[in-house]
Order: sequence, then structure tokens, then C-alpha cells
Amino acid sequence: MTLPEVDLADPALLSPLRWEAETGRLWLLDQRCLPAQERWLPLARYTEVVRAISDMAVRGAPAIGIAAAYGVVLGAREGAPLPEVMAALSRTRPTAVNLFWALRRMEAVARAHGGDAAALEREALAIHREDAAACLAMGRHGAPLLPPGTVLTHCNAGALATGGYGTALGVIRAAVAAGLPLRVLATETRPFLQGARLTCWELQKSGIDVTLITDGMAGHLMARGEVQAVLVGADRIARSGDVANKIGTYSLAVLAREHGLPFYVAAPRSTLDLATARGADIPIEERASEEVTHLGGVPVAPPGVPARHPAFDVTPARLVAAIITEAGVARPPYEESLPRLLGVN
Amino acid sequence: MTLPEVDLADPALLSPLRWEAETGRLWLLDQRCLPAQERWLPLARYTEVVRAISDMAVRGAPAIGIAAAYGVVLGAREGAPLPEVMAALSRTRPTAVNLFWALRRMEAVARAHGGDAAALEREALAIHREDAAACLAMGRHGAPLLPPGTVLTHCNAGALATGGYGTALGVIRAAVAAGLPLRVLATETRPFLQGARLTCWELQKSGIDVTLITDGMAGHLMARGEVQAVLVGADRIARSGDVANKIGTYSLAVLAREHGLPFYVAAPRSTLDLATARGADIPIEERASEEVTHLGGVPVAPPGVPARHPAFDVTPARLVAAIITEAGVARPPYEESLPRLLGVN
Repeated sequence: MTLPEVDLADPALLSPLRWEAETGRLWLLDQRCLPAQERWLPLARYTEVVRAISDMAVRGAPAIGIAAAYGVVLGAREGAPLPEVMAALSRTRPTAVNLFWALRRMEAVARAHGGDAAALEREALAIHREDAAACLAMGRHGAPLLPPGTVLTHCNAGALATGGYGTALGVIRAAVAAGLPLRVLATETRPFLQGARLTCWELQKSGIDVTLITDGMAGHLMARGEVQAVLVGADRIARSGDVANKIGTYSLAVLAREHGLPFYVAAPRSTLDLATARGADIPIEERASEEVTHLGGVPVAPPGVPARHPAFDVTPARLVAAIITEAGVARPPYEESLPRLLGVN
Repeated sequence: MTLPEVDLADPALLSPLRWEAETGRLWLLDQRCLPAQERWLPLARYTEVVRAISDMAVRGAPAIGIAAAYGVVLGAREGAPLPEVMAALSRTRPTAVNLFWALRRMEAVARAHGGDAAALEREALAIHREDAAACLAMGRHGAPLLPPGTVLTHCNAGALATGGYGTALGVIRAAVAAGLPLRVLATETRPFLQGARLTCWELQKSGIDVTLITDGMAGHLMARGEVQAVLVGADRIARSGDVANKIGTYSLAVLAREHGLPFYVAAPRSTLDLATARGADIPIEERASEEVTHLGGVPVAPPGVPARHPAFDVTPARLVAAIITEAGVARPPYEESLPRLLGVN
């Protein structure tokens, strides 16, 4: 598997992370402020990275993994004990497996080079660069799957969720670049509104035709023939092909099948968790209920009413038409196709 | 069909409309301000009722019909030409058939009594009282259908959407009053958040166990066995049994069937439109896209991104396990059961 060459300084990548080698700082595009404000946070301490991941200043499984890798570099530069740094970073969010994958890579380098910060920095940059390259490769492999018409996507599986270019949105970018007449329907994705705030922002910036809907409108528009395919990212994919992704994804997959529409997932190998057999074994993060009962600090429900907040759900493999990776397109049965495609066991 | 006796002054009804006979004013609980504020609007002119319906100060199919009936009374008291009053009121919202049903009743009385305001006032009060009574009857008929456990409801089909007590929430009230151990999951119902703002408010007020979720969480919670039934209201039911209701309802009905859960609809006969053969013939209101792109006046999407806003969707009869009316419970095939139950053709 050869990945495309990527220059991380290319602004067309729309990467939400920038490593400033001179000062040893990680610049992070604060996604909580978008679209109102393009605010970049300079992070110089690993604890700041821990907080940025927990508080969702950075989100999206691949971007979380990259941020954690840079967090280890910051920890090493501060002289913090690396096991402590790794532990703190690994406690931030339980579902995105890219976090643990990136930390394992960093740990192996730390072990091989005795915690040398320069070696760790090279590895973090490689993780970042490889992720953006994987997105470009996913675009190349996935674009031919998309039919002309309207693709519905959920949450933000775009440049902002990755090292650049995007997983699901990368495939859409590649299809549009190849001349496919494509419109995007973006679900707003409550409670964090990543679709409204982030997907609309980056597709508009890239000149791609995007229309916003609420999460509840998807079924209605499918029934009226206004959707031709559904394409999402993933936070963790089990060996079975079951896909953990942003809450609401499973509902969309059921609706897609009801209407005979293909449901595609785009994700790099860092999202693949072959050690987890089935979706039921994936830990689903429960976040604070205030994130549901309040919107921008303003309550939308009466005080005292409890709210649930599972941040992810699991879409069973039987509803997934194909998984698009940097190494090619996997089809069911995924237990065979995924390891074969990615050359892993 | 004998309806229960209702005293419109009973505060337990939680009616969002109060007719002040002495001054000839309609007091309306402004539902846009809930749950932050219980603000009652005094309406003295029919044009104020037109605006209150259009702007959703009052909403919910039965409540819209009752408000329109009182609007005709105000028009008659002002000496406005009744055809003009009727036309203005009928243009407010196209989907809820109760609006047109109420206006037809008012028109018949106007014709029989030469536009006499006192006769019109009696009829509006009768429409209001009968609607609350129908809700109580729906509760009696529907309560035995509910299993113990958790019922999921969408939007607000409660006291606030009716003359009092509620359609879907009326059935829930009756089941709880009968001792059934019942919890309610309320979808927040974007974009207007009627579930978060209104359903949570009135169930909390009535001491009924309610938990808020976002619209996208329903499928996930069903898959985990955390929902035992779905129960919603309706804005219009075609002769076929196809149900127009708040956008997002159709998705919930598909998900309910996927998980083997009964999907129930509670609605009075004023919601039944036997003149409309199928759901595809029901006009679906498209509202302003700003209601999706903005939340409480604050933009959630970048400027210039278009949004769709169908306010309703249609759930085909094949997904509806039963329709609960004031005359009893209709089962498929609805083309036979509904007219028979309601004694209409």
C-alpha cells in the first residue's frame, strides 16, 4: 500500500492541527467556535491537549489520534513522565480507537529511542502526514462508488476530523473533483451540531454544494427519492465490520436500507480495531446530559429534567454496503475482507 | 359516542387557551417562551390569532383548530367580514386538517345564525370543550395498549397541543393514573424543540417520569431494548390511515418496526381527513430555512448555507399498529376501521 505524498503546510488540506516546530507548539483550530470564529489555540503543555480532547476543541477519531500523538511530544519536551502522559491522554475519550492506536505508536518510538523528544516529534508528524495521505487515498478508492445526485452525511467526517482532506468528505471531494454532479445533505447532528457547524463550513469553503437538514428529516427525504447514498466516517470498526460512529448513524443506516440506498463508511486503518470482535464490545462514551439540555449555555429543557447522552452508536455490519479505506474498498464479509485489505491480523 | 364531561376552567387540563367571556378576549399560552417563561398573550383581534398560529405561539393540530374557532368569534365581534376572517385563518398553516374542520363548523353556525357573535362563541367553546373531552376519552381507550416500561414520544402531542390533557400524552397520563409503571422518552424534536421545551415541561408539571433525548438517539436506545412502544399525535390522517405528523415521525416509525415495537397514533376525529385518500395527497408545509439555520436567533450554520425545512412527514399506514381515537381504537385496514369507528363517511 503506497500512500500519496502530502505537504502538511498545504492550506487546501484544511487540517485542524498545525505543528510549530520552532517553538514546539501545537496549534489547534478550536472547533467549538466554528463557524462563528476561526480561533486557533496554541498548546504548549500536554495537559492542554488532554483538555482540548475531553472538551471537544478537537474531535473526530483520526484528529483525536493525531492530537494525542502531539500531546506525547509536548509531554516529552516538558520532561513529564511518559507513562503518566500516555495515561492522561488515553483517559480522554473511550470510543475513538485511533487515540489508543496513536498512543501505541508513540509508546513504541519512546521505548526504541529512550523518550527522545525529536524522535517522538518525527513520529507525530508521520502520523499526521500519513492520516492526510490516507484520506487522499480513500478519496481515490471511494469516489467511484458514489452515484450522481445527493449524498447524505452525518456529523463531520471531514478535514476537520482528520489530519486534513477528510474521510467521508474526502471521498466527496474526490468525486466532485472527478466531475461527478454531487450535492451533499448534511444532518445538523445534535447535540454538538458538528454537521451544521463544521461540515457546512468546510464544504462551503471548498465550494461543494451543501444543504443543511435536521437529523429527523433524513427518512422523509429518502422516502421522497431525494437521497441516493449515505456516507459517514467511523470512530471504531470491530473485526465483524460493526461500525461505531456519532450517535444517530445507526438510525440513518436503518433508514438507508429501508429505502434501498447504499450505506458507506470511510475510515483509515487506524480506526480498525481487529482486537474487538463485535460492535457490542465497543465502549460507548456517555457524555454530560447538560450537553443535551443546554444549547450554547442556554437551557432548552425545564430545569431538573434528565437527559441521556450516548455520544456514539453501533451500526451492525449487515447494514454497511462497503467500508472505504486507504488500501481499497472492503465488502462483506468484513471479517475476511478487512484484514486482507489492510494486510493485518 | 358519549364524551366525558369537561370543565374548561379545570387547571389540571393544562389547556393552552382560555376564553375570557366578560371581555371577549382569547388568552393564549405563548409556547415559544416555554419553558423559560409562562407568558399568556391576550388576543382581542382576529388578525392577532392569524399571527399567533403562523408564528407558532399556538401549535399542535387540535389547538390550532380551537384557536381558529376563537379567531372567528373575535372577527365577528370586530364586525369584520366573516369570509375574509375565514380566508385569513385558513391560510396560516396547510397541514393540520383540524384548522379547516374547525372553520367549517364555525362557517355552518355563522350561516345558520346570520353571523351572530354569541352563537359563534358558543360553538367555539363547544369545539374547545369537545376536544378536551376527546383527549380524556382517548386516554381511556389507549391506556390499555401501553406496555409497562418506556414509551417514546415525539414533538408535543400533549395538553399544550390540544384543548387540554393531550392526545398521545393524554394516553400516557391515563396509563400512569391507572397505575402502569411508565417512563417517557421525549425526543427534543428539532428544529422547534417542542419535545425538549413543551413535552418535558408538561410531563414534569404532571409528575410523570420523563427523560430527554436528541432525535438521533432513538434508534440506538431501541436497539438496546430501552424502548417498549412509540406513541405520537397527528396533524392529519388520510382515509388510508397514512399519518402526517411532525417531521421525524416517519423515521421513528421505521425504527419501531425494525425493532419489533408497536407504533401508535392518538388523534381526535377532527384530525381525520376522509376526503384525502392517501398520505401522498397531504400538503406538507415548508417553513423558513432560518428556523433550521438559527437557534434562538443565533446562527448554528455558516451564513449562506441553505437549509430544508419540511415541517411534517407522512408515516404510511403499514407502519401504524393502531390509531387511538375518542371513539375507540382503530386497527388496520384503516380504510374500513376508521370510518366505522367514527361513524363517518
